[in-house]
Amino acid sequence: MASLTLTEIQEAQTQLKGIVIETPMIYSPSLSRIFEAQIFLKLETFQETGSFKERGAYTKLKSLSSEVLKRGIIALSAGNHAQAVAFHAQKLHIPTTIVMPLFTPPTKVGNTERWGARIVLAGRNLDEAYKIAQEIALKDHLTFIHPYDDPYVIAGQGTVGIEMLEACPELDIIVVAIGGGGLCAGLVIAAKSIKPSLKVYGVQVDGYASMSHILYGTSERSSGNATLADGIAVKTPGNLTRAILKDFLDGIIVVTEEEIEHAVHLFACKQNIIVEGAGAAGLSALLNSPSLFKGKKVGIVVSGGNIDARIVSAIMLRGQIHEGRLNLLRIKITDVPGVLEQISGIIAKHQGNIVEVKHERLIYEIPIRMAELDIMVETRGIDHIHLIIENLKASGFDVSILTTNSDKI
Amino acid sequence: MASLTLTEIQEAQTQLKGIVIETPMIYSPSLSRIFEAQIFLKLETFQETGSFKERGAYTKLKSLSSEVLKRGIIALSAGNHAQAVAFHAQKLHIPTTIVMPLFTPPTKVGNTERWGARIVLAGRNLDEAYKIAQEIALKDHLTFIHPYDDPYVIAGQGTVGIEMLEACPELDIIVVAIGGGGLCAGLVIAAKSIKPSLKVYGVQVDGYASMSHILYGTSERSSGNATLADGIAVKTPGNLTRAILKDFLDGIIVVTEEEIEHAVHLFACKQNIIVEGAGAAGLSALLNSPSLFKGKKVGIVVSGGNIDARIVSAIMLRGQIHEGRLNLLRIKITDVPGVLEQISGIIAKHQGNIVEVKHERLIYEIPIRMAELDIMVETRGIDHIHLIIENLKASGFDVSILTTNSDKI
Repeated sequence: MASLTLTEIQEAQTQLKGIVIETPMIYSPSLSRIFEAQIFLKLETFQETGSFKERGAYTKLKSLSSEVLKRGIIALSAGNHAQAVAFHAQKLHIPTTIVMPLFTPPTKVGNTERWGARIVLAGRNLDEAYKIAQEIALKDHLTFIHPYDDPYVIAGQGTVGIEMLEACPELDIIVVAIGGGGLCAGLVIAAKSIKPSLKVYGVQVDGYASMSHILYGTSERSSGNATLADGIAVKTPGNLTRAILKDFLDGIIVVTEEEIEHAVHLFACKQNIIVEGAGAAGLSALLNSPSLFKGKKVGIVVSGGNIDARIVSAIMLRGQIHEGRLNLLRIKITDVPGVLEQISGIIAKHQGNIVEVKHERLIYEIPIRMAELDIMVETRGIDHIHLIIENLKASGFDVSILTTNSDKI
Repeated sequence: MASLTLTEIQEAQTQLKGIVIETPMIYSPSLSRIFEAQIFLKLETFQETGSFKERGAYTKLKSLSSEVLKRGIIALSAGNHAQAVAFHAQKLHIPTTIVMPLFTPPTKVGNTERWGARIVLAGRNLDEAYKIAQEIALKDHLTFIHPYDDPYVIAGQGTVGIEMLEACPELDIIVVAIGGGGLCAGLVIAAKSIKPSLKVYGVQVDGYASMSHILYGTSERSSGNATLADGIAVKTPGNLTRAILKDFLDGIIVVTEEEIEHAVHLFACKQNIIVEGAGAAGLSALLNSPSLFKGKKVGIVVSGGNIDARIVSAIMLRGQIHEGRLNLLRIKITDVPGVLEQISGIIAKHQGNIVEVKHERLIYEIPIRMAELDIMVETRGIDHIHLIIENLKASGFDVSILTTNSDKI
């Protein structure tokens, strides 16, 4: 591929027909209401391996000669790229090795293993694993499939942009996450070629805002810390991708961990979809900079849904707490019969729903004949729990609320 | 409306354009793989109030005279019908009263209240609440909007069937939940009129299989028990709906609570969508009677997504346990320093991830110098946890597994 233009992306699109899913682009009334914008979601979470990565992986595999494919391929990834490569390589009967760092969660290893790839667990971090993958590639004559810095991969990912504008030509803005930059680079070429007036914003997460640093000189904060948006926690963006983004991108919004978590929660509770941290980056940009999007027709790429069930469960519960729908009350009580009956009676009378009760008697601060009762109460929201607290206090109970909540969205 | 035919449903469809969302019908590769069928999902979870109920509610409201609407309307529902009526009535500036039984969860009350309706919390069960709603209607001259036994409501719900066959004319079978029967009745008329060779199966949940009893004489089991599929926990199906289903329906599959829960889990983990119990009824029918669907093109109505965040969190975690990805081990230990280090070392060495640790020292069965250690371990699945248990045993530990899992899907 000499240079990457809309033509190459259109060719990739033709090649991908019937191979990957043309995912739906849906209008979200609830999110549109919250952000006072018209919000459309491109649901790449519905791809078989749960992310857009299949587009680039398949496009790249089809570009290789049958001789190369016979020898086999190798890829390095702890997540979606691994699954996407393994899945399509299996369908094309290509011998495949996937190197995954030692820290990769068991679920992700299992999800890659099931597509028949040889898994090599090695390297304490991605840099170490990368070196190991290169060594294996050299030794075994395998072709390395780069997750983003490859024109075929970028062309494949770019098909997302074409599909979004086909489904919704009136979009004003597209927001898309940036890790290595493959998806954003392909998308920005496609979308701006089709509709030059369209704005495209990238999103990075605080701690991994390396592309923003390179393009705009913002402070580099590659913390190496754990992030919910692990799918875009890339320290070194691609060379090809950075050149494309420099030419075409309208800006990068750097979001916080809290905004990512909040966005995952909004997707679950307002749209009934389960989205991974990196997949929620686009929406988190609206939480970060709402004024940029107000009144506009905004297309958000919901890029992936591979999130641990434990983590998404926790986020949903934390979201309930944030909204004042789940509340942990601590009540100092005298450790005598009948007190729990009295307290639960007051809560029930005001339509609160008790979901958990714990007694604490061992902590030093409490006198020996006293206990602390921790009660988790489900309510309609902040006003409702405050009403219940007032009524408990009016009956003489020493009540405090341990969960913090806010009046925010 | 004299009689209900495809024509009336097509008229409802025209009226609903731009008012409710024409929800996507998506192909599910993961579920198709599991059930060895081609599975398409009609995602009514994407409606603004989270269910198909808006279609019938709006169609009914538009059939009423402006005089009637000025006096106001009243509806009885603990769930989706309440939200659907309140939402569209607010947009049409109709004074609205919603009667909800006293047991209605605070979240559902809040979600209905936000559309500006007057909420009356009354009645210890739906029958009592129904009587109260009738009394208020009479006293305040309000028009009662029935949740299913009304030709306009049935016509509105039937538009789901037209849309499914427009999106996917090659369907062999449609599976759809039955509560009062409004959705199923409208859908079966529309779908069979368009494609007479199509089979339509209804789904009811064990304990509320009243329509199955009426139509096919299966044992009536209206238990009145709590069910995850509360949206279809209807004791008395409609008269209109039963007459339509008697003429057109190909059968009713009665599913268990476990199958409903399993289906909610599959939707979350294999399709990344959050679905309420009643909304998962269609998929649970495939778990119940897989041979009926094998090799077929199956359209499943995913009718609603309004499920408590706490409940869906619990289902996702229980699903992880069922699959052997989360495992609770109980290990008898001598209560001396260093034991936890040794155990966690063995688990780490075999790539298990410890997510929770609890010590139990107070229970009588344990000698005083011993303790029981409960460790929650995340693994790749059943083989993986067995490998870890064997290694713990080889080091002399007395280990048992408290979570049960199976090799099922």
